[in-house]
Parts: sequence; structure tokens; C-alpha cells
Amino acid sequence: MADEFARIARLKQRFESGARAGALVGIGDDAAVLATGAENLVLSVDTNQEGVHFERRFGPLSVLSARAFSAAISDLAAMGAAARCALTALTLPAQLSESDFDALVDGLARAAGEYSCPIVGGNLAAGPALSITTTVVGSVSGTGLSRAGARAGHRIYVTGALGSAALGLALLQRMAADRGPAFVARWLEPRARLAEGQQLLGIASAAIDVSDGALQDLEHLCRASGVGAEIDAAALPLAEGFVELARSIALDPLALALSGGEDYELLYTVPEHAPPGPGTCIGRVTPNPGRLVVLDPQQQPIAIATRGYRHFSG
Amino acid sequence: MADEFARIARLKQRFESGARAGALVGIGDDAAVLATGAENLVLSVDTNQEGVHFERRFGPLSVLSARAFSAAISDLAAMGAAARCALTALTLPAQLSESDFDALVDGLARAAGEYSCPIVGGNLAAGPALSITTTVVGSVSGTGLSRAGARAGHRIYVTGALGSAALGLALLQRMAADRGPAFVARWLEPRARLAEGQQLLGIASAAIDVSDGALQDLEHLCRASGVGAEIDAAALPLAEGFVELARSIALDPLALALSGGEDYELLYTVPEHAPPGPGTCIGRVTPNPGRLVVLDPQQQPIAIATRGYRHFSG
Repeated sequence: MADEFARIARLKQRFESGARAGALVGIGDDAAVLATGAENLVLSVDTNQEGVHFERRFGPLSVLSARAFSAAISDLAAMGAAARCALTALTLPAQLSESDFDALVDGLARAAGEYSCPIVGGNLAAGPALSITTTVVGSVSGTGLSRAGARAGHRIYVTGALGSAALGLALLQRMAADRGPAFVARWLEPRARLAEGQQLLGIASAAIDVSDGALQDLEHLCRASGVGAEIDAAALPLAEGFVELARSIALDPLALALSGGEDYELLYTVPEHAPPGPGTCIGRVTPNPGRLVVLDPQQQPIAIATRGYRHFSG
Repeated sequence: MADEFARIARLKQRFESGARAGALVGIGDDAAVLATGAENLVLSVDTNQEGVHFERRFGPLSVLSARAFSAAISDLAAMGAAARCALTALTLPAQLSESDFDALVDGLARAAGEYSCPIVGGNLAAGPALSITTTVVGSVSGTGLSRAGARAGHRIYVTGALGSAALGLALLQRMAADRGPAFVARWLEPRARLAEGQQLLGIASAAIDVSDGALQDLEHLCRASGVGAEIDAAALPLAEGFVELARSIALDPLALALSGGEDYELLYTVPEHAPPGPGTCIGRVTPNPGRLVVLDPQQQPIAIATRGYRHFSG
């Protein structure tokens, strides 16, 4: 059976060089110590739980752990923040092997490197299933991108394409990853939009990342801003081959694009005559609080069956 | 079945006034935003997992969640830091009722209030067992209390009494809480030594909190400092009635005091002629790296069977 302190020593060794760069005191003391400057700090935490957010069979542990890290970083992107450092709390089942543990750590170290977001501390605990809880610390001037600044008439944009990750997940769940490896990669290896988020500071009136599903995340943004929204179905950015592949496994491409989560793209609003930022315009903000409408090319409302994934829902 | 967003709304309502005091942006956006000043930030994370760190039958959920919060805060105390704010990542089993959820939240809100450490964000996830992962943010001038500054000749001190929490836990595990309610309270309702930690800044050469067990935590401190230690068994601070009660349930009081964890007292070292701080002197630092010796009143070494609790140990 693995020893907790031996594992901590290995974590320290694996994460240390990065941790030194990001913190005055890194892994191995009671807490990490971080120098602060003129900017404000941005804090967020995200849990990725085996059996809920991922299955081990979906990919190598190094990829799944890097994915968990990206999901946490995405919240910094949605604030327009720069990444500073991270803490990693791992819950590990007793049967996790040392090579599995190493793979988990490799993925975290790689992701931390790619986002220039050193892991400066964390926690190891035993538990019934694998879970990865990542606390991310970023910095921003001012208060960053809020969800609450959208006003009637503002345009709604989204980076990248919608629904790709959900289509990839559907393929993984159907054991059909080989039918769309590019979509599977979009689920397994999302890239948090850190650079785009920072680019949106001073441009976007409101922003959120697409984690629960575009329509549901837009609903969060609209609720925070006290507005409504109209989405043009035909304007939704979809990856090449998305529609055909979705239909081939009996999924509605539109529902998937609007409700499939975990794209980790940025959904944001921009005043009418402001520069649009890096995204695609998919609709506009309306004055009706809480009213979200999806329109077909004839400007007729389309009923959408589901609004994304909710934990705990019956 | 409970709704995730309804629960988040309740968390926001319950934690909001505190969150406003501690952060520029609190619960309900993608991340919290924290203003920083001239001090350095201290970051730590701790997981409390049902079935590993606690059992539901040990006490009300409001007490168990406050306990989890205290355990995280204790790492700030061990750094000599002042508490600034916290993030709470909860993993909730599907069968958790709304009144259980409310109790959980009540305990966290109460603890956050008692430590003046507002909860400014967090995460909710479904999972197989209840777990509470608390990220704490503190502030300190300089780099706080390190584990690495103990030198040969320094005196070793500990606040409060040792082993009380472990004795309380032993009573809970034996369904014999009524035999020692004061000890049970020491396990169920520990108080992190925040004020004492700050008092030790400029006094202690090294410090750690007693979470794994005094001897094991002293071992961490000695390893970080490259020194050894001698402990005087007769000098260990024990609560009134501790020895008799431990013996009455066939536990060795000395082993319990040295190896029982979760007291969340501060163990620290002080140069020979410096003021001692708030603790009791229990021994001295020696120049032999890694060598920990417990001495009886005749200065003879005592063999101690166990050195505290390790997750994952076989």
C-alpha cells in the first residue's frame, strides 16, 4: 500500500520547480505563501469526481487529470484573469496503483506547465472514488469580467465551436471514440481560454465559461444581469462534421450545441458598437429578464428539450 | 431530488454578508475577487472525507462541517497567518436531504463567522460519499512560521493538551461518548490556534500544527529543519482525567498523547533564551537529523509503538 508521505515527497519533487516560481513558500510547509502586488486576486475551486464527471475508461489518467485542471482554469478565463498558482486536493481510492498515481500527477504537472500556473500546495486523502479538486488563484486589475454587465441591445458572442465536447463525450459513452477522434479530443483535452478572457477585458460587458451548456450558462449570465436573450440557431458556430456525426448517433445537433456542456469556451456580451473580440456573434441581449429564446432563420422560436447538465437533478 | 442551482442560491444567501466583507466579488460569479495589500497571501487546502476522517454518527452535520473548517484554518495558524477568506468544495451523496444540507451549511457559516474568515466561493458536486474540501486564504507579513527553522538547542513547545481529541475519537468509536464528553468535544469542536500562531511570529523558530499526531508532526518539523528532538514524557501537557480515562478503555496514555492526531494544537520551537510563547515546554532540539527520542524521568528512552495516523498505510 502506498505511503502518504512518500507520495507527498513525489508531488513536491514533481511540482517543485514550478512552485518555486509562483510562491515564496511552496509545497511541504503547512501552507503556501504568495507575494501579492497591485492587482486583485481571483479565486475559484472545481471538483472532478470519478463516476460523475468522468469514467476511468474514457482516457489515460494523465489526460483526465489535466482535463480537471483545465476545467478549474476556465473559471479564471471567464473572469479575464491571468493564472497565478493552484492547489490540488486529491481523493484517492485505496486500490489506486503507483503508476496510476504517477499518471495523475504527470497530467497535473503538464497542465500546470501549459497554463504557467504552478501547483504550490494541496492535500491527499483516501476516499471511495477518485476525485480531483483544484483551487486556482489568478490576478486581475479591477474586478475582471462579471456575469452581471449585460444590457439590452448588447451582442452575444461565443469563442470556438459549441457542442463538440458533448459530442465527444457521447462517443466515449457509446464506446465509439474512433468515429470522431477530433470531438473526443475536444472533451478529453479542452483548452481553457485564458488569453481570450484577458483580451475581453475592457471589451465584454459580461462573460461566463461554457461548462454546463451554452443555454444554461447564458441563463446564469442573464439572471445575473437582469436581462433576457435571443439566440439565432443558424449562427451557432459548429465544428466541421459536427451535424452529420451527431445525427449518425441519433443526437439532435442543435440541442447538443445549446445544451452540451464542458466546451470551456467563453460566452460573452459586447455593447453594440464595440469591437467584437475573438468570438462568433450568436444573438443579442433583450430587456426581458429571464426570457431566453432560440430563433430559427425565419425568426420563429424553437423549443429546446434540455438546458444542460445539472448535478443532483431528478 | 435537490437542485444544484437552488442549493447554490441558498449558499449565497447564507454566506453572502460575510463574503461581501472579504471580497470584491463573492459567490455567484465564475470566481471570487480579493483585494490584496502589502502582506503576503497564505494558501492551504484540506479535505474531510466521510468514512475516512469522520463518520456521520459521530455528531450533527453542523458540528462535523465546522470541524472540517477548523482543520483547514489550523494550517493558517501554523503559518502565523491571519485568516482572510475561504472556498468550500462539497461533494454530496445523492441521498443527502435538504435538512442535512442546511445543517452542513450552518456549521460552515458558523465556523466562518467565528474565525472571521468569510466563504467567498466554492463548488458543489455529486459523489459517492460526503466530503468537505476547504481552501483557506490568509495573510502574513514575510513568509510566516516555517517548519524549517529549528536548530539544535532550541526548546520544543506545544499549546494546550495532547491526545485529548484522540481520546474523544476513541470514545466515539466505542459508542462511549458519555464517559468523557469533554474529550469528545475536543475531537468534535477543535479550535484552530489562530491567535497563538500570530503571537508566535518573531518568537518561534519553527512551527507546525498537530494534525497527524505530535510525534509524527514533530518528525515533519525536524525533517524540514534537518535536526532531531528529545521529548520528556513527563512534561507532556495532559488534560485532567486523561490518563485515568485512557487506561479505563485500555489505551496507553503516553502513546495516545504522542500519536493521537487532530488536536490542532501548535507545536513549535523557540531559541533557548527567547520568550516561550503560549505553550508548554516538552523537550529540546538535537543536532541528529531525523532522530526523535522520548525520554522517561530517568532520561531513559521509551519505545513508542505508533507514530500517528497515515492515510493509505497498509
